[in-house]
Amino acid sequence: MSAKMLNDLSRLCIHTITTKPWSIEEAAIHYSKAGVKGISVWRDALHNRSIRGVATMLREHDLKVVSLCRGGFFPALDLQKRINQIDENKRAIEEAHELGAPLVVLVCGSDTEQSLEDSRKQIRDGIEAIVGEAAAAGVRLAIEPLHPMYADTRSAINTLAQANALAEVINSPTVGVAIDVYHVWWDPTLEFEIKRSGENRHLFAFHICDWNVPTTDLLNDRGIMGEGCIPVNKIRSWVEATGFEGFYEVEIFSNKYWQQDQSEFLKKIIKAYKENS
Amino acid sequence: MSAKMLNDLSRLCIHTITTKPWSIEEAAIHYSKAGVKGISVWRDALHNRSIRGVATMLREHDLKVVSLCRGGFFPALDLQKRINQIDENKRAIEEAHELGAPLVVLVCGSDTEQSLEDSRKQIRDGIEAIVGEAAAAGVRLAIEPLHPMYADTRSAINTLAQANALAEVINSPTVGVAIDVYHVWWDPTLEFEIKRSGENRHLFAFHICDWNVPTTDLLNDRGIMGEGCIPVNKIRSWVEATGFEGFYEVEIFSNKYWQQDQSEFLKKIIKAYKENS
Repeated sequence: MSAKMLNDLSRLCIHTITTKPWSIEEAAIHYSKAGVKGISVWRDALHNRSIRGVATMLREHDLKVVSLCRGGFFPALDLQKRINQIDENKRAIEEAHELGAPLVVLVCGSDTEQSLEDSRKQIRDGIEAIVGEAAAAGVRLAIEPLHPMYADTRSAINTLAQANALAEVINSPTVGVAIDVYHVWWDPTLEFEIKRSGENRHLFAFHICDWNVPTTDLLNDRGIMGEGCIPVNKIRSWVEATGFEGFYEVEIFSNKYWQQDQSEFLKKIIKAYKENS
Repeated sequence: MSAKMLNDLSRLCIHTITTKPWSIEEAAIHYSKAGVKGISVWRDALHNRSIRGVATMLREHDLKVVSLCRGGFFPALDLQKRINQIDENKRAIEEAHELGAPLVVLVCGSDTEQSLEDSRKQIRDGIEAIVGEAAAAGVRLAIEPLHPMYADTRSAINTLAQANALAEVINSPTVGVAIDVYHVWWDPTLEFEIKRSGENRHLFAFHICDWNVPTTDLLNDRGIMGEGCIPVNKIRSWVEATGFEGFYEVEIFSNKYWQQDQSEFLKKIIKAYKENS
């Protein structure tokens, strides 16, 4: 199945980290002016601000808050660190509630001081420790599988199969998955696993960007859709086939683009979104 | 199960690329003197040499040739390129035969001009096109799954599950898999898939090194065993549980170590091999 071109921006969401040099106030002005309808807010963008004030400001710019990024980082060899991190996740849920964000994205974490198996158990424990709080706050949680190159310190959940299985075992309408093409495009089971997410009603979020060829930095060398080798349109068609009606969220970490004029960068994103997303 | 320490070097093999600044003649002298028993030869190390002469030289140093690296790179959108590459693989098989290498390791390739699915089909076609030649030459072929971060240009075979499935479908005693801890350590299905390789009698080679934390370069920042976060001993115990009796091959690409004194580097490898492999 080939996906249709996206002729309007009604489902376009941008992550504040994508235009990192802008404050959230600047981002809101520019996104809104360009016709972007959704915003995913990184917690650092809220620093030293009234969260309810930011919520009001975003509403005034007709921007829907799609998610708060990010919770997670549950595993640690040290118990006290794990307890502290659960508290930190509860604060993130509270912030999401205040902001009016319906979702917290979880970058689950990994600790090289212990085995991946132990980190994986602690991730499940961590999510189970916060799911009640999240449900009470009306905030959902999305397990985001991260590319295997981040298994050392960022996430021990590295495939959509793992994220799906974890969401199944937790078995709560509050807990699902976030699919970022950057992390999963290489996976030969991807189409099957996206279908599984959808059938479970666990497909909570869909992130887009591209994989640069070559990639020069493991973290901050993502491309705009169409610049790299990810078949974003094809993967979107699989996501749409599940009945997904959420936003297409542009999340690009790029030292290269962060050094450039952010207005020009935003124009490129919107052009690429229409042609290659 | 925890693996025993390796008190002798009888199963230690080093890849010529590991000590890239050394010619194969220098490598042979130093490896042999240090008590290393196996050598895997990268094709560039044979440049401008009589292959039979190198074979004799290695025998004189009491080094067993474990494999020739590398064949593969089968996929290409362009048919003529695919045909040329099959010829190139036949030359690699011939070189392996002349060198007395019982195995050619396949880095299967990937072409961003086409889908991963197409690249995967062409990999199967490519291997099937050379398996007769390999069998006739008494040379086996090992499909090496590469880390997903290499799916763009180096290999569309990115998990041991894929490599196992491909070897099963080709279904020849000549075709198996090579397992490099660097590529597969993150995989939650790893223990299961190693068992599957073993039960199929397809576990042809085992490569070791480590994943540096942080990793600063996608290609040439591998660590010595024990320096990073890969549980090399644990993975070795899974490999040994299959009855594997081959060499433990040290394959380290490292800009850092290539700039240092290679004799000191070799000492560190041997110390680490005994303690952390």
